[in-house]
Amino acid sequence: MSLNTMVAVLAASLLSACAAPQLRGTGDLGVVIERAKGRVEIVETSGRSVLGKVDGLGDLSHASLNYSRDGRYAYVFGRDGGLTKVDLLEQRIVKRVMQSGNSIGGAISQDGKLVAVANYTPGGVKVFDSNTLEQVADIPALDETGKSSKVVGLVDAPGNRFVWSLFDAGEIWVANLKNPASPVLEKFRNIGKEPYDAMITADGRYYLAGLFGEDGLALLDLWDMPSGVKRILNGYGKGEQKLPVYKMPHLEGWAATGNELLVPAVGRHEVLVVDQNHWQEVGRIAVHGQPVFVVARPDNRQVWVNFAFPHNDTVQVIDVPSRKIVHTFKPGKGVLHIEFTPRGEQAWLSVRDENRVEVYDSESFEKLGDLQADSPSGIFFTHRAHRTGL
Amino acid sequence: MSLNTMVAVLAASLLSACAAPQLRGTGDLGVVIERAKGRVEIVETSGRSVLGKVDGLGDLSHASLNYSRDGRYAYVFGRDGGLTKVDLLEQRIVKRVMQSGNSIGGAISQDGKLVAVANYTPGGVKVFDSNTLEQVADIPALDETGKSSKVVGLVDAPGNRFVWSLFDAGEIWVANLKNPASPVLEKFRNIGKEPYDAMITADGRYYLAGLFGEDGLALLDLWDMPSGVKRILNGYGKGEQKLPVYKMPHLEGWAATGNELLVPAVGRHEVLVVDQNHWQEVGRIAVHGQPVFVVARPDNRQVWVNFAFPHNDTVQVIDVPSRKIVHTFKPGKGVLHIEFTPRGEQAWLSVRDENRVEVYDSESFEKLGDLQADSPSGIFFTHRAHRTGL
Repeated sequence: MSLNTMVAVLAASLLSACAAPQLRGTGDLGVVIERAKGRVEIVETSGRSVLGKVDGLGDLSHASLNYSRDGRYAYVFGRDGGLTKVDLLEQRIVKRVMQSGNSIGGAISQDGKLVAVANYTPGGVKVFDSNTLEQVADIPALDETGKSSKVVGLVDAPGNRFVWSLFDAGEIWVANLKNPASPVLEKFRNIGKEPYDAMITADGRYYLAGLFGEDGLALLDLWDMPSGVKRILNGYGKGEQKLPVYKMPHLEGWAATGNELLVPAVGRHEVLVVDQNHWQEVGRIAVHGQPVFVVARPDNRQVWVNFAFPHNDTVQVIDVPSRKIVHTFKPGKGVLHIEFTPRGEQAWLSVRDENRVEVYDSESFEKLGDLQADSPSGIFFTHRAHRTGL
Repeated sequence: MSLNTMVAVLAASLLSACAAPQLRGTGDLGVVIERAKGRVEIVETSGRSVLGKVDGLGDLSHASLNYSRDGRYAYVFGRDGGLTKVDLLEQRIVKRVMQSGNSIGGAISQDGKLVAVANYTPGGVKVFDSNTLEQVADIPALDETGKSSKVVGLVDAPGNRFVWSLFDAGEIWVANLKNPASPVLEKFRNIGKEPYDAMITADGRYYLAGLFGEDGLALLDLWDMPSGVKRILNGYGKGEQKLPVYKMPHLEGWAATGNELLVPAVGRHEVLVVDQNHWQEVGRIAVHGQPVFVVARPDNRQVWVNFAFPHNDTVQVIDVPSRKIVHTFKPGKGVLHIEFTPRGEQAWLSVRDENRVEVYDSESFEKLGDLQADSPSGIFFTHRAHRTGL
């Protein structure tokens, strides 16, 4: 190599080193799912900007994700069974595995070492090393007769446990994965018809599954497992005409405000208020349509609600203590998701049919700006890495 | 420059570019105060290691800190009135200002743009731009007669507000800093004798100041400011002999478990249990010494307690639902602080006189390891960036 060439090569290396990803904190980062493109957008909330896009994630309709404990990596669960580890700093795919035929979500263990994925086809839960994405456990979801079930409502719980529900079998399972090579399972049978989704309270104590096959919820107190699963809000729609359900509400979005749980009623234009001490319904709030996400602002003072088609152009804000709607607005067609910044000063909304993410001041309701995104659906900020059940 | 020199220069530049700080997430980082050395240690909780040390922070006895919203920078409040901005990734001081003669803590605004510092000498609160550390507001703490007061218990609250107490005057002030050039102040007078520290609940609703001049606490509901400040737990030590107080408890460490507040009694070997719905004392838990920090594990199932001299070699763990002590152990002399990882699987303890930080599994109580640190006091993990009041 001539000296000239050497200089050129060194200069190129130097440039490439300088073009290396910028050193930055990950605490104000987030990911927006661009569902139609199989792509994710990496955003930051301090300046409200798009940092970059990462392509090649497969079918992202209905996709969700979890974060590594350092906030650098997102584990994206695609509808096609793909599990993709994305590096937010280098803006690239680190690894991608096709782990099943059809998956609907996942969770990351308390210690951050395990990523669990819930599958429809075939049913069951697969668990992966969060570093390498190597499979470390495969737990089929078989009922007492050996029939496989779709798995829904998979969440993490303290003690490196995961909890999930079996849609077809009507069961709730708690798995302790302290030793992933031999998961310890506890199964609760006959918990109700067709659990379709579930949530866990922020303290990791109560697991609640919504039942599609009957009006009501199944409740498991993880501090008191011997008492088993209880039914709450049984027959909340009794004797009333149910509306056709265009979109199932998401239970991940249920608002637990500390004392109360605000629950989207299935097939009704109502949000139910449940007292968390006695698990009784204590009120109903009439809203603009069938609620989908019912999301508490981090200070629990407000709850923001979006709706199923044909009311999915609208967002309503409920004042929690008075249970009154204090604000109604129409960002545009296809409001699919609501995400608050960690301390709640901003609300980010994905407006699918307008190809943009809108950002609002959550106190004044003033629009602060918007970001371009192709058919955006889920918005996920990195502080979720530090919360149970998110 | 000859080609040879040019090659050498380029190679050196390339090496220095490669030696640049490693790209990494900031979600698993933390800072340990080395109080005697004026130094901080940067740690990470995934591998439990020390990443580096940063020197030159002045008098760090009783130091505390807050994090920038991206988790990259720590704002360290020194006892000498120094405010130091430390870059955790580059492991260096970005800027340091001497903002007063004697400061005891600070807070960062909800939007992350303002850092407020509480001062003893002279009293009052100074507010700085979190980016540049330029002063943007100076709020003296003068009572009705114009006399200056020490400021204690400074916390952030939703709506870019700060709340603090005036020790000498016995007042609580709420400052709205939406427009830092003209802070809007609301003052509550005659709230009780000598508020010495305070906390705000995680939802940013209730501000509680401990009173040194009388047994009791002052409570302000920020959702109902017109109702003013109320006295709670009045005379909790009435008719009983008070022990000499060797160290004041820290109210930042009070455990709010959602329904209950666990409060260290001043001058007593007790933790008081307060019902958060009615703000009444509902129980007392006898403990090993005078409690200093009473810290809830993030799932609120357990509360860990350390003690004032001569019992500061011991830690006790309370099971919240049964209010029983389930574990007592002696890490060594001078256990000054307890910090949980964000999702609670590990507890980190600073053991000053042993010059080490110890890490425990919070479920099995097994010791997982330790890290060297010179006279460690406060331990602060970056997830605090995303919490109100931390």
